[in-house]
Amino acid sequence: MKKILVVGGAGTVGRAVVENLRAAGHTVLIAGRSSGDYRVDIKSDESVRALFEQTGRLDAIVSTTGSVFFGPLSQMSAAQFDIGLQDKLLGQVRLALIGQHYLNEGGSITLTSGILAEEPIAQGVNATAVNTALEGFVRAAATELPGRRINVVSPTVLTESLDVFGSYFPGFESVPAARAALAYRRSVDGVQTGQVYRVG
Amino acid sequence: MKKILVVGGAGTVGRAVVENLRAAGHTVLIAGRSSGDYRVDIKSDESVRALFEQTGRLDAIVSTTGSVFFGPLSQMSAAQFDIGLQDKLLGQVRLALIGQHYLNEGGSITLTSGILAEEPIAQGVNATAVNTALEGFVRAAATELPGRRINVVSPTVLTESLDVFGSYFPGFESVPAARAALAYRRSVDGVQTGQVYRVG
Repeated sequence: MKKILVVGGAGTVGRAVVENLRAAGHTVLIAGRSSGDYRVDIKSDESVRALFEQTGRLDAIVSTTGSVFFGPLSQMSAAQFDIGLQDKLLGQVRLALIGQHYLNEGGSITLTSGILAEEPIAQGVNATAVNTALEGFVRAAATELPGRRINVVSPTVLTESLDVFGSYFPGFESVPAARAALAYRRSVDGVQTGQVYRVG
Repeated sequence: MKKILVVGGAGTVGRAVVENLRAAGHTVLIAGRSSGDYRVDIKSDESVRALFEQTGRLDAIVSTTGSVFFGPLSQMSAAQFDIGLQDKLLGQVRLALIGQHYLNEGGSITLTSGILAEEPIAQGVNATAVNTALEGFVRAAATELPGRRINVVSPTVLTESLDVFGSYFPGFESVPAARAALAYRRSVDGVQTGQVYRVG
């Protein structure tokens, strides 16, 4: 039985991850921007530090959160591109940088990237850059976390999100959130580190 | 004969690129933080826009510039991680976002990542994340630049830099800057887009 924090646990992926981890017998705490057991703003050091002070030491930190900017390259500004850098990228990196100090020996961190890392879609340059950066970060960070692991899950578009996002993903095969959740479970209860678990 | 801007043209890679492109008969303008034909701060929209207003329309934009943060993961802050995001990543992305509007039909943009994208070294998590992000950005941006191309060159450690950086790259085979410069030439005068030219 592990004590696990899921940041973004109220989102579509997050809910499925929480359900999966609880069914496996783990104790799961949920943090979110506007709901869950704890409120957190992943763009703030103070907020993230306060979160971990409240949870205390953990066996696993899972992040299923973060926004990126969508828009055509021809009209994109650096400030718009920075939105995804500050939120989904640096926000999740911040969870790892601060969270590492609250992680028990043998513990793990699992972040979220996405299929756009490999398969660009229209208006998705920020998403592709942010997702690839997260995969690079995890690959490197795994070499500097002795006794602890870090991975990233890269899901394709979720079946549950097709109504809203489906038109952005023409011809992409969707996966149910419950299937994506399996990859988070593999990361939390498996043995690998520095991995990208692609689901799609 | 092309009109080409090399940002970072006074650096070790940049000088070799300028030499190669001039030998090929191109007209090369050099921009840099503190030297060259034009001064530019790639962290500033205003400075980058002023640069392109001075150069006028171009056939190619080459960037061989950008800093990242090196330090142990266990002591790294989000603000330190953001250094590379704002400089080497967003700085080069800014050159592309603004520069696209000054690029002639058939023109190209060539950015610089580095071998740490694939091969992490100690204290290099920021470099790995930044370099992978640049490769993702180029892969996606290539799909939204009709009539124009964008690539990235990923050199390994330079032979000329071994005195300073060699101890960070144990067992890495270095390449002379002149060999790395060939990849930039391939990007500028070739036909591919969305490519990562790895030199090492």
